[in-house]
Amino acid sequence: MKLSDIGEKGLLERLQKFSPPGILGDDGAVLATKAGESLVVTTDMLVDGVHFSDVTTSAEDAGWRAAAANLSDLAAMGASPLGITVGLGLPKDVAISWVEGVYQGMVNCLNQYGVPIVGGDIVRSPVKTLGITAFGQVEPHRVISRNTAKPGYVILVTGVHGASRAGLELLLHPELVDDKSENLSKQEKAELIKAHQRPQPRLDILPILSQIFDYSTTRLPISGMDSSDGLADAVLQICLSSGVGAILESDKIPIPRSAYKWRSPQQVLEYALYGGEDFELVLAMPQDAANTLVQKLGQNSAIIGTITAETTVLLSNNIESNPDQVLILNRGFQHF
Amino acid sequence: MKLSDIGEKGLLERLQKFSPPGILGDDGAVLATKAGESLVVTTDMLVDGVHFSDVTTSAEDAGWRAAAANLSDLAAMGASPLGITVGLGLPKDVAISWVEGVYQGMVNCLNQYGVPIVGGDIVRSPVKTLGITAFGQVEPHRVISRNTAKPGYVILVTGVHGASRAGLELLLHPELVDDKSENLSKQEKAELIKAHQRPQPRLDILPILSQIFDYSTTRLPISGMDSSDGLADAVLQICLSSGVGAILESDKIPIPRSAYKWRSPQQVLEYALYGGEDFELVLAMPQDAANTLVQKLGQNSAIIGTITAETTVLLSNNIESNPDQVLILNRGFQHF
Repeated sequence: MKLSDIGEKGLLERLQKFSPPGILGDDGAVLATKAGESLVVTTDMLVDGVHFSDVTTSAEDAGWRAAAANLSDLAAMGASPLGITVGLGLPKDVAISWVEGVYQGMVNCLNQYGVPIVGGDIVRSPVKTLGITAFGQVEPHRVISRNTAKPGYVILVTGVHGASRAGLELLLHPELVDDKSENLSKQEKAELIKAHQRPQPRLDILPILSQIFDYSTTRLPISGMDSSDGLADAVLQICLSSGVGAILESDKIPIPRSAYKWRSPQQVLEYALYGGEDFELVLAMPQDAANTLVQKLGQNSAIIGTITAETTVLLSNNIESNPDQVLILNRGFQHF
Repeated sequence: MKLSDIGEKGLLERLQKFSPPGILGDDGAVLATKAGESLVVTTDMLVDGVHFSDVTTSAEDAGWRAAAANLSDLAAMGASPLGITVGLGLPKDVAISWVEGVYQGMVNCLNQYGVPIVGGDIVRSPVKTLGITAFGQVEPHRVISRNTAKPGYVILVTGVHGASRAGLELLLHPELVDDKSENLSKQEKAELIKAHQRPQPRLDILPILSQIFDYSTTRLPISGMDSSDGLADAVLQICLSSGVGAILESDKIPIPRSAYKWRSPQQVLEYALYGGEDFELVLAMPQDAANTLVQKLGQNSAIIGTITAETTVLLSNNIESNPDQVLILNRGFQHF
């Protein structure tokens, strides 16, 4: 069944089941916000052939990843999600099963956190395009910003980095998946692929931060963002915004163990620093709080470095005989 | 200057001037909402060649219209705007002046109401695409919904209909603009074109409704939506959602006078009912309130019909000798 068979109204009716009853049907969706909380808004565009493709991404994976990326942005701001809107640009001949697959993938991810799809728009376009906007709420003094890192804070990551990029490599070269000389078990390969296809936004961090910090009136002493554009990019953005520098210890960065069986230590480090799309949080905070957070999060989280009063971000390379290096922006994926 | 010359970061820097200082730069934008108010969210996708084209729409017009359409959705919900996010899908070779023109057009429209652009995303796409999400706030009992029209309510429009469609006709056939046999003055043509290129969202209606209705605790006795998809569509949607019918008096519909000098009465009525994009509000409410509202709004607003307990929407044709007719959905522009 193609879109041209059932038209926009037909498709809208079929997509209603993915939203709470009664929330669609007006010019806008109405949502309650808690008194005294601030609204946080984030938006992403995803384009077929650029951000997803039938080669590496099923419709459900594309939907999951799109939802996860936006929820991750909210988590990185310290905000609890309220809902998302979905704009769809679709060619006439798009299969309805593809569109429903995207919605199913989004809902599968969103349902873990009770987040509804509260509105959307479906239009004709020569290229499959998703425009997603997520909004959440947070007490104003609990907002996590990029520009509040202070020298002496340590840098913490909430999970492994490089797994998503390694999984993408397997998806781009499917011949590797069946190649037994590749030194990875089937399960290890499946886990890396899953890291790419089904990333988890770290909304679970927010209640843990609430436990750790007694910040009923004072501003949260945390700076941070997510690592969607790579771990190196996240650290650099935090430092640039805060007017500080950092030293990262490359051997402290949590990396999926299987990756080392497969690629050289230098390649694995590249995946971790520049691969992107791991959707973990990169947080700078006082040492004590970071120790407690790592304890609560378990082995995949780690303190990986320190904020300094310099203006450079230095990578202290303890792998092999690599010299230390200064990280620079834009080493990662370029959009244009 | 092309996008490929300056890249995404270069473009982002140039677009910062269109947003309030300090609001961009994090994973999401933080906005204050008033305690006790509900959040209203609406989203639109616009695609080059479908919703705008260089033939009929300059970059600034495309931006203005995109912003106006979203603010109109908020007005139709009774909500005061808080901000918008803008997702941009752009080909590599897009002219930077085009992108800045779109932003300038959006800001020109938004500034009338003090609404900021609070975030966005810029990605590569083979086709110029705009994904706009607007959010506003409203006291929960002041929400204007489509599904609360009651038999006995009258139907009111806040302004003329058909002007946007007539203006589009002139834009699609530029030879008409200079053709003196077309029976319209230059100024009349310019006004029709402006109606299409620079529609005004009717946010000015909200404080007037506040004056008219003493509804500090009870629900606003108004049902409505905007006429972006045509006046006929708006009346039909309200009636379908509310489980009621309506009688419209075709000669009560406010139509730009110049249109009659140019097109047959039947053609002009078609423009008014099905042309769309006039972005007026179509409101059903008790007669007394409607009388007061029309008095306050002036000559271009009008009561055009009545909500009935039937399930049909009847157009009572007082133009020439046309018989009455039953309006049906989907008579207007089809997206697929």
